[in-house]
Amino acid sequence: MKKHQKTQFTIFGINNAISIIESDGFNVSKIDILKKGRAEKDNQLIHLISKLTFQPKFYEKQGFYQKYPGGRTQGIAVVITDDIVKEVLPDLSKKESVCLLALDQIEDPQNFGQIIRTAECAGIDGIIFPKHHSTSITDTVLQVSQGAFVTMPLYEVTNLKNEFNQLKKDGFWIVGLENSINAKDWHEIDYKGKTVIVVGSEGKGIREKVLESCDFKATIPMQGKTNSLNVSAAVSAIVFERLRQIQEKN
Amino acid sequence: MKKHQKTQFTIFGINNAISIIESDGFNVSKIDILKKGRAEKDNQLIHLISKLTFQPKFYEKQGFYQKYPGGRTQGIAVVITDDIVKEVLPDLSKKESVCLLALDQIEDPQNFGQIIRTAECAGIDGIIFPKHHSTSITDTVLQVSQGAFVTMPLYEVTNLKNEFNQLKKDGFWIVGLENSINAKDWHEIDYKGKTVIVVGSEGKGIREKVLESCDFKATIPMQGKTNSLNVSAAVSAIVFERLRQIQEKN
Repeated sequence: MKKHQKTQFTIFGINNAISIIESDGFNVSKIDILKKGRAEKDNQLIHLISKLTFQPKFYEKQGFYQKYPGGRTQGIAVVITDDIVKEVLPDLSKKESVCLLALDQIEDPQNFGQIIRTAECAGIDGIIFPKHHSTSITDTVLQVSQGAFVTMPLYEVTNLKNEFNQLKKDGFWIVGLENSINAKDWHEIDYKGKTVIVVGSEGKGIREKVLESCDFKATIPMQGKTNSLNVSAAVSAIVFERLRQIQEKN
Repeated sequence: MKKHQKTQFTIFGINNAISIIESDGFNVSKIDILKKGRAEKDNQLIHLISKLTFQPKFYEKQGFYQKYPGGRTQGIAVVITDDIVKEVLPDLSKKESVCLLALDQIEDPQNFGQIIRTAECAGIDGIIFPKHHSTSITDTVLQVSQGAFVTMPLYEVTNLKNEFNQLKKDGFWIVGLENSINAKDWHEIDYKGKTVIVVGSEGKGIREKVLESCDFKATIPMQGKTNSLNVSAAVSAIVFERLRQIQEKN
């Protein structure tokens, strides 16, 4: 699939469109709307669009579906040209409580998109993923994130391990979510300070070299027989445990 | 979509096949395997199948894909004829710690399947959903559950509210996950005893009449701007918070 860094891409869906327009931080070059579609009936969206300096184009069914066949467009396509992905993390050494999520070997765009969405809702400060050993940011990833990519910083780095070493110098603890004998239960770890939470894919887990960089290992013990929690569900459990700890502290 | 209660249905995927065969509780009438596919190379699966009293049928590519076009079969189809869905809850009055999940208006089979999977991993004792105001148990729901439907009891009831009233008599507290002014943060609620956790769909929430039956309302406060947590991610946060509370108690 095409990578969308520094290139043009097309995003569908009402939530995505609202997030993009409201953020005012994107280079919107085109908005196509299906006549009598769900988007055209969405008052909030139409009001936002009416305040833009350029006009959207309205399409009859045939024209719209010819241009955007299949899928869950909700009757709107927004074309933007932007850097979605950053390559350098900001200086986080001065911050007190900050939590980054690092994704290793996440290859399913559905999971990647869901994780962005969940992380944004839980107040995570950014997502790091390696240039290789990961899916790229594609239309599907952004689509599934339901607009969360607009506010969630995404960092694509060359080498996760090097990045962790730098973050450790800035006072971060690195926590790897991995089932192993010396792992603690996920809620026994303190996430209140500067933390990186690392997750791997369901099949492959975290690469050995990346795991070596972790200060702690966390596990979510399986209570059933299937023994296979979806990775985005695991992320949800751990990022909201972090939020709980922060809320209880205050 | 066809409902699968008391009828024949076809389930794909290695995890699903293993769960079904290992459980020994299903009426397996047929197993079709793609030659040189992923399933045929899975030693655990092939070993399990070799101990069955009947033989699977092996297909060349063309034959297999003609029979099972599209989708993520992983090269195996298992046909079973069974009651997947129960209609009457067991007597839970004597149990001390038991947690049921009630789904109201969940219409997306992907979400339904993910919720079954997550609930099974978190040790939930059963899932209740209304006959109307819910998607049925379809192939997709079972597929997405990754075999979790084998061990997770699924109860389809005529009226959620009546069911809650009976459960209350048996000592259950009903907790509705719903953003409202008088809701407590999700981790401020005690889930250690007999609990029903009720969730609604992202768009529609829990029906007003069902919400009236709830003893408590829980909310997961959104930390970002998108304000839309996927319902299966919300379920993950809350069922693992329950698990945390039980583990800390012990």
